[in-house]
Amino acid sequence: MKEIKYWYEDLPPGRIFTYPERQVTAEEIIDFAAEFDPQPFHLSEEAGRASILGGLAASGWHTCAITMREFCDTMLLSSSSEGAPGIDLVEWRKPVLAGDRLSGRMEVLEARELRSRPGIGLVRFRHEITNQRGETVMIMEHPAMFRMREAS
Amino acid sequence: MKEIKYWYEDLPPGRIFTYPERQVTAEEIIDFAAEFDPQPFHLSEEAGRASILGGLAASGWHTCAITMREFCDTMLLSSSSEGAPGIDLVEWRKPVLAGDRLSGRMEVLEARELRSRPGIGLVRFRHEITNQRGETVMIMEHPAMFRMREAS
Repeated sequence: MKEIKYWYEDLPPGRIFTYPERQVTAEEIIDFAAEFDPQPFHLSEEAGRASILGGLAASGWHTCAITMREFCDTMLLSSSSEGAPGIDLVEWRKPVLAGDRLSGRMEVLEARELRSRPGIGLVRFRHEITNQRGETVMIMEHPAMFRMREAS
Repeated sequence: MKEIKYWYEDLPPGRIFTYPERQVTAEEIIDFAAEFDPQPFHLSEEAGRASILGGLAASGWHTCAITMREFCDTMLLSSSSEGAPGIDLVEWRKPVLAGDRLSGRMEVLEARELRSRPGIGLVRFRHEITNQRGETVMIMEHPAMFRMREAS
């Protein structure tokens, strides 16, 4: 069994986690887009430059998936997570272009015990992803469920 | 230049598109999860069976990405799309398990001209993805922008 570092009780509103810087390459942008979002501006530098995005740009879903991976590595895989029911909000505010270096910040917005499921709490998170110029490229908010330490 | 089949004017509220059936394999579930969402129940049948998901289950983000591909192939790549500002809502209602056959239905919820951008309209979509038992596995709602035929 993995060791659990983050239980429901460790995720109070206001707690902040940060994601390390990560460069997004042209190759991974194109690989993701070819499989899931083959719009021209996600597939070539030339088409990206001809679009309002201004260059080869990652699919918004790719930025979500990259953020999920950061969330996993930073906290979720060491937690008592019981899964997530969905997503409340995503805003793609700026294009993520090939070569951009992303970093991130995740904050607990809300935490409450679930009456319907004793021993489980619902935690709402807000992820803010920024590029190397300090511009916010994406906001994502979603809930997830965690077991309580005291119930285990 | 590609031929545009769907302009803003072709996407009135109530218009429905359907997605063809598509099987989700264990291999693609594991490939996606290994890169973006390496929680144990997305990586092996054994861990999936031991979880509340009941089997090797696709990452919710994978189901979103698969839906994006269906959206592209069915409509978006033949449209006057000008991109999307984000996601309003995702609900992961049931697990998507290895071998499941997904199909989908997409409906236009709302369409309005943007005063701030003449010649562009904002269209809101609702995607409903179902499995081979007719169960809804995911709901997704989001806006996207489209150029108007009459402005082109």
